[in-house]
Amino acid sequence: MSENIAVLGLGLMGTALAESLLAAGHRVTVWNRSPAKAGPLVAKGATRADTPAQAVAANPLVIVCLLDYPSSRAVLEDVELAGKVVANLTTGRPAEARELATWVAERGGEYLDGGIMAVPQMIGRPGALILYSGSERSFDRYEQAFAAMAEPRFTGADPGMAPLLDLAMLTGMYGQIAGFLEAAALVTSAKYPLGEFTSSLLVPWLNAMAALQPAWAEKIESGDHATEVSNLEVNRAGMENLVRAFREQGVKPDLLLPMKTVIDQRAARGLGHEGLSGLVEEL
Amino acid sequence: MSENIAVLGLGLMGTALAESLLAAGHRVTVWNRSPAKAGPLVAKGATRADTPAQAVAANPLVIVCLLDYPSSRAVLEDVELAGKVVANLTTGRPAEARELATWVAERGGEYLDGGIMAVPQMIGRPGALILYSGSERSFDRYEQAFAAMAEPRFTGADPGMAPLLDLAMLTGMYGQIAGFLEAAALVTSAKYPLGEFTSSLLVPWLNAMAALQPAWAEKIESGDHATEVSNLEVNRAGMENLVRAFREQGVKPDLLLPMKTVIDQRAARGLGHEGLSGLVEEL
Ligand SMILES: NC(=O)c1ccc[n+]([C@@H]2O[C@H](COP(=O)([O-])OP(=O)(O)OC[C@H]3O[C@@H](n4cnc5c(N)ncnc54)[C@H](OP(=O)(O)O)[C@@H]3O)[C@@H](O)[C@H]2O)c1
Ligand SMILES: NC(=O)c1ccc[n+]([C@@H]2O[C@H](COP(=O)([O-])OP(=O)(O)OC[C@H]3O[C@@H](n4cnc5c(N)ncnc54)[C@H](OP(=O)(O)O)[C@@H]3O)[C@@H](O)[C@H]2O)c1
Repeated sequence: MSENIAVLGLGLMGTALAESLLAAGHRVTVWNRSPAKAGPLVAKGATRADTPAQAVAANPLVIVCLLDYPSSRAVLEDVELAGKVVANLTTGRPAEARELATWVAERGGEYLDGGIMAVPQMIGRPGALILYSGSERSFDRYEQAFAAMAEPRFTGADPGMAPLLDLAMLTGMYGQIAGFLEAAALVTSAKYPLGEFTSSLLVPWLNAMAALQPAWAEKIESGDHATEVSNLEVNRAGMENLVRAFREQGVKPDLLLPMKTVIDQRAARGLGHEGLSGLVEEL
Repeated sequence: MSENIAVLGLGLMGTALAESLLAAGHRVTVWNRSPAKAGPLVAKGATRADTPAQAVAANPLVIVCLLDYPSSRAVLEDVELAGKVVANLTTGRPAEARELATWVAERGGEYLDGGIMAVPQMIGRPGALILYSGSERSFDRYEQAFAAMAEPRFTGADPGMAPLLDLAMLTGMYGQIAGFLEAAALVTSAKYPLGEFTSSLLVPWLNAMAALQPAWAEKIESGDHATEVSNLEVNRAGMENLVRAFREQGVKPDLLLPMKTVIDQRAARGLGHEGLSGLVEEL
């Protein structure tokens, strides 16, 4: 089914979103603060609007993708939102999403928040994912249109849920990157070829270790942190050794230090027999 | 070819190693400080020795797997090592491995150090890996016997290399675990089902992100940290947001904080246009 959709914000991401909607045959009206960015989309069949209000007027679905929530709110300020569905795919915090949801509801609109788990180059291609939360009715109504941009996944009625899960995935990624950077520094200090280490040792190992995470999630959900693999005492000694080896190689283990601190702290509470999953209770 | 092998140390790991060697048809002599642990292996065909010296006497290959390097050194103290190959698979630091290698060489032995990338349950099964470094001649001589325990990989003549790469892999793992724990705490704070988040969102995402690491390794090797994906300024703002979201959810972002500090530090040097790979130069 072909929908009438307004896209507000034509940065790298907004442009990619609008392109994928056009490619799927939807009627797309675009607006951007710097009007020049609309040109290439108009050439592909989009309608250009001069103001956000004009863009929204004829379209029941409004996709917003701007720098941040303050810009999103500013852009929507003078727009008539009654009866519209606003899907805000701007990255932000759960608290900001909940606030904007209330603000839109007060103006008679329905609100969906979205977390884009992709770079612009991935939009419209397999592997791209967008998490949604907020009005489930609106999600069901537009799920097919959303699918043109990326695999859509509804995560709950709390509008803060999609941004929260988005941030949680970024958190996992930052941890993984921190581990990679420290490992890379250590390997480089010993003049071992880093590309070879990364492709043939580290990546397969990290994939094998990530496969254990669902079992850890179960332990966290049950609160039972018993382990048959390696308890906190063993990890405490291992971490001590690790930090000492970094120093002997002249590499700063800074990104790992709080992990050491939290292990020490939990072991000091007499929980050294538990596994690493129990550390979540210190956070 | 069936070899004559001494195994010193029958903890969980030493027992698994000796079992896999026996299963592959090697003649194995075992010794452990607490003699009772030799019982089950003797039942499977191993020969029990009363002292380390006696275990080593009739066997040209000596596999050591003890608590740490000080115990390994103590156990080898009164043993005649001339003409023997000592493969020490005890976990330790590169500096300890280099020291023990010298000590063994002074006694006329050849030395290999090993880093076991497996838990005891994996020994003798596909997926288990042991990194070796030190005497390449000794590695070549016994590579087939080593293969009974785990896939053997020679990593260089510096005896410290295998323990260093072992520690680098553990480092990558600790980073990934830290990211998982913080993500789990955030998701739990929002009462989203953690098992569902972990299996269907986080793990596939981490695998996709790990696949980017070889490209990062290239940037680090070349020293060119240009990026087309996301520069340090974007990550600085993202990290700011992340930390604020954690605090709003009542979760401590402690394990992520040094990553934030290092990003801020490098951006403050005027390198905000670079990608995250450049952070390695701050370590
Ligand atoms: N790029 C990615 O890889 C990626 C991935 C996931 C999520 N996201 C999220 O998607 C959103 C957009 O990212 P992007 O990559 O498209 O960024 P971008 O290329 O920098 O575009 C930013 C957009 O915001 C507009 N803007 C900024 N301040 C404004 C204001 N005060 N009033 C009105 N418009 C304003 C810009 O308009 P002008 O053109 O007039 O400057 C532009 O349309 C962000 O929330 C980002 O976190 C991006
Ligand atoms: N288990 C794993 O998942 C794993 C994975 C990779 C690497 N490793 C490494 O493998 C090595 C052994 O681990 P494990 O799991 O077998 O540990 P374990 O079950 O605790 O066994 C420790 C062994 O060391 C001996 N030992 C300790 N102190 C000694 C001393 N002063 N003199 C003589 N013997 C002493 C113990 O003898 P008693 O029996 O007399 O106490 C026992 O044989 C460690 O370096 C560990 O880091 C283990």
